[in-house]
Amino acid sequence: VNRKIVIALDGMGGDHAPREVVLGAAEAVRSLDVGIALTGREDLLQEELARVSPRPQGITIVPAADTVGMDEHAALAVRHKRDSSINAAMHLAKNGDAQAVVSAGNSGATMAAALLLLGRIEGVERPAIGGVLPTGADPVLLLDVGANADCKPSFLLQFARVGEVYMRLAHGVVQPRVALLSNGEEDAKGNQLVQEARVLLRSSGLNFIGNVEGRQILKGAADVVVTDGFTGNVALKVAEGMSEFIFEELKRTLINRFVARAAAGITLGPTLRALKHRLDYAERGGAPLLGVRGMVFIAHGRSDARAICNAVRVAKEAVELGVLAATEAALSARSLS
Amino acid sequence: VNRKIVIALDGMGGDHAPREVVLGAAEAVRSLDVGIALTGREDLLQEELARVSPRPQGITIVPAADTVGMDEHAALAVRHKRDSSINAAMHLAKNGDAQAVVSAGNSGATMAAALLLLGRIEGVERPAIGGVLPTGADPVLLLDVGANADCKPSFLLQFARVGEVYMRLAHGVVQPRVALLSNGEEDAKGNQLVQEARVLLRSSGLNFIGNVEGRQILKGAADVVVTDGFTGNVALKVAEGMSEFIFEELKRTLINRFVARAAAGITLGPTLRALKHRLDYAERGGAPLLGVRGMVFIAHGRSDARAICNAVRVAKEAVELGVLAATEAALSARSLS
Repeated sequence: VNRKIVIALDGMGGDHAPREVVLGAAEAVRSLDVGIALTGREDLLQEELARVSPRPQGITIVPAADTVGMDEHAALAVRHKRDSSINAAMHLAKNGDAQAVVSAGNSGATMAAALLLLGRIEGVERPAIGGVLPTGADPVLLLDVGANADCKPSFLLQFARVGEVYMRLAHGVVQPRVALLSNGEEDAKGNQLVQEARVLLRSSGLNFIGNVEGRQILKGAADVVVTDGFTGNVALKVAEGMSEFIFEELKRTLINRFVARAAAGITLGPTLRALKHRLDYAERGGAPLLGVRGMVFIAHGRSDARAICNAVRVAKEAVELGVLAATEAALSARSLS
Repeated sequence: VNRKIVIALDGMGGDHAPREVVLGAAEAVRSLDVGIALTGREDLLQEELARVSPRPQGITIVPAADTVGMDEHAALAVRHKRDSSINAAMHLAKNGDAQAVVSAGNSGATMAAALLLLGRIEGVERPAIGGVLPTGADPVLLLDVGANADCKPSFLLQFARVGEVYMRLAHGVVQPRVALLSNGEEDAKGNQLVQEARVLLRSSGLNFIGNVEGRQILKGAADVVVTDGFTGNVALKVAEGMSEFIFEELKRTLINRFVARAAAGITLGPTLRALKHRLDYAERGGAPLLGVRGMVFIAHGRSDARAICNAVRVAKEAVELGVLAATEAALSARSLS
């Protein structure tokens, strides 16, 4: 029997939940060969589903009474709100009723729920959130982008291992080049953490190419760039902020210049839009939470229906490509050796 | 007697030294009311000066036989190459023969030479390099952007104090808003360093507004953003890299589209150029090294003549505005209280 892949989708997670999540789910079942298990308040989810015409096929509502807010204390919320939509999604993945989880909700809560209910892969001390960034050539995976503000050197080695498998499987990169984010390429550069992690990475058997600077991330100098979750989060947000800044300035200047605006409408509009599209988080789907015993994707809090649907697509592809099993195999081979 | 301000310029520092440095010095004495003391190999500097026609007035060559390479170990080079061009520039500032130092050379060596020969301001444990970034409104000072890869919480408090004085004096910002760079705005966010530094900043008497994320730096959410030199360097380089990436992509796409290219030449070319100009490090002059007993500016290693001249202009303005004395006063008032 060729059963459909089912994605557990946190119906209450995100700034625009439940509406945009429901619309994203509807788009996903329409355009992708996938089933959706939508968790959350049944009344609210039914109400939103009723607005979609024709009523989408392949969405199952899994009731969960509680919701974790975007600013709630993640670990406490996950432990005390047992019947939350994010916990319900993790339970589905744990029981095999879903093959992956997608949430645009509180990312700390998603991680806490994944740790509590799915647990860690053997050989992984801490899971990491992987940020997929565009480059001139292939995308680059930056991790951790926010799960672990303070890291030990061994965490960074494990981030490299799970990230290497992800880029190999999910993005088809042969022998991914792994680099350490630093404040300079030279070996003498780096803070204490980088200095110690470099020793571990050198003898890891990975295709480790040394330090890269912030400038080089977007130049495609490496396929996997590892860093602590504090620095990675700052790097990701600065990249987003710079991109927003430039497009806002271009827009502002164009609006001030009528001739340019007219010309832009004909010629540059599509160029700018295409580039903005490439830089848009919503196009890249969710960020994988790597190192837990399940496929979990964290979508942007600001996700709209399109972003949710893209995250579901990326999650489904990761399931089809066997990312989880490959990660477990790569890490357990390491634990044994 | 209204004596001219003299800037000591490291004639051998930078990827394009000595030629571009000499051309920048020539441009500076021509366009700014300033004298230049150019340090380095007399033969090479004379040779470059001889190419400039008419021969510029107001440049004095101060011979120094040694040069510190861009990749040399900074502290060792400064101690062993006593007669280096960067040391010679610092000596001029120390003896009062120059009022500020500009170098596009090895930034570690510039810092080491400044520490060795000028020393620290009372109340400052470590000097910081301040990166001036553009925003939609006024520029923002990010520090440290590379001098100290590992920081104690007290360093961050001192970065805030010296940065606050710099933005107040050099950029005329009234009551600069000071923020701590973090992986989230909420108080619970941050690594150990941020958590501890926040306590110090709260009771500092500064206009401390809390955490800012990477995205907000470029939105003008704060005037002074403090962080450790590792994270600050990554943030600065990612911002540079993203800007380069977007402009390269736009250029590439435009060249591929003849119509767009023709239209861009007429209308959007100036728009893009104006924005690129604003984002260009070369326009913003050097990065101030704050916390040493002297005005020192670190220009970008890739500086051309225009970037050198801009760094000299910014240094001259900082001297005129009395940044050093104000910094010493602000910090010593703190030490006494």
